[in-house]
Amino acid sequence: MSPVDIRAATDEDWPKIWPFFAAIVDAGETYAFPDGLTLETARPWWMEEPPGLTVVAVDGDRVLGSAKMGPNRPARGAHVATASFMVDPASQGRGVGRALGEYVVEWARAAGYRSMQFNAVVETNTSAVRLWQSLGFDILTTVPEAFDHPEHGLVGLHIMFQRF
Amino acid sequence: MSPVDIRAATDEDWPKIWPFFAAIVDAGETYAFPDGLTLETARPWWMEEPPGLTVVAVDGDRVLGSAKMGPNRPARGAHVATASFMVDPASQGRGVGRALGEYVVEWARAAGYRSMQFNAVVETNTSAVRLWQSLGFDILTTVPEAFDHPEHGLVGLHIMFQRF
Repeated sequence: MSPVDIRAATDEDWPKIWPFFAAIVDAGETYAFPDGLTLETARPWWMEEPPGLTVVAVDGDRVLGSAKMGPNRPARGAHVATASFMVDPASQGRGVGRALGEYVVEWARAAGYRSMQFNAVVETNTSAVRLWQSLGFDILTTVPEAFDHPEHGLVGLHIMFQRF
Repeated sequence: MSPVDIRAATDEDWPKIWPFFAAIVDAGETYAFPDGLTLETARPWWMEEPPGLTVVAVDGDRVLGSAKMGPNRPARGAHVATASFMVDPASQGRGVGRALGEYVVEWARAAGYRSMQFNAVVETNTSAVRLWQSLGFDILTTVPEAFDHPEHGLVGLHIMFQRF
């Protein structure tokens, strides 16, 4: 496996992100995005504007995964960062999620955020939960039955947090 | 004091909500809305579209307070409701917040939501915290130092929750 490079996403990257974004949203196991998004309507749900940032993990011309990051709330809450992650299912198992997670934490620290909060980590997504824990995040609480999982039914959403 | 009536907000109500919305946001003690909102740019931050709803508490022609409510997340999270509340400081102490809170809980139950989540209740806003507790909400966790209070500095944001 070649190393994973991470760089800011451009407009030209979005059509390469969209196929795995759509596959992951359709699978319905990890994210509560709206139903029926298209290439065009999904774009503002993933492609951040400053002060936020969207990055891609690439292997040459191939986009393996993506992350978006920025303030969790505006103004009086803007010192807390948040982020979301998607890895192409075809590229799982080669450390793309971990590389994106490490990038995002470093970005938020460097940008002066005081902490980072994940608002909705599906509790059955145990590989993601373990990854975030290994990067320093704690589960603050689990909102019970807050996510309608296609296989497991109503499952909890973890709120995860790391102080920098 | 005359009783408080609560009804769906119309476009014509927004200019009557805006003055106390702006005063409350400017005071900076309870909400993390963006800085620099205007009558026009603030409107979509408060006036909900279906399936959400914005209501006003009125005494005749006078708007005393307002609440907005709807799904906390789209699609696979849309069975959990959320809501926000603003009471004109000039109308505090006459039960407007409680009347709005009771209305919103009843609306969410009747609409078939399974639960309601408040994502960011400023911990120093103790009158609101006590009101929500009296209406059946529990504090699931407190995100530490997540709100920059103009007087108290960095204070926590409670995540409050009620299962129906």
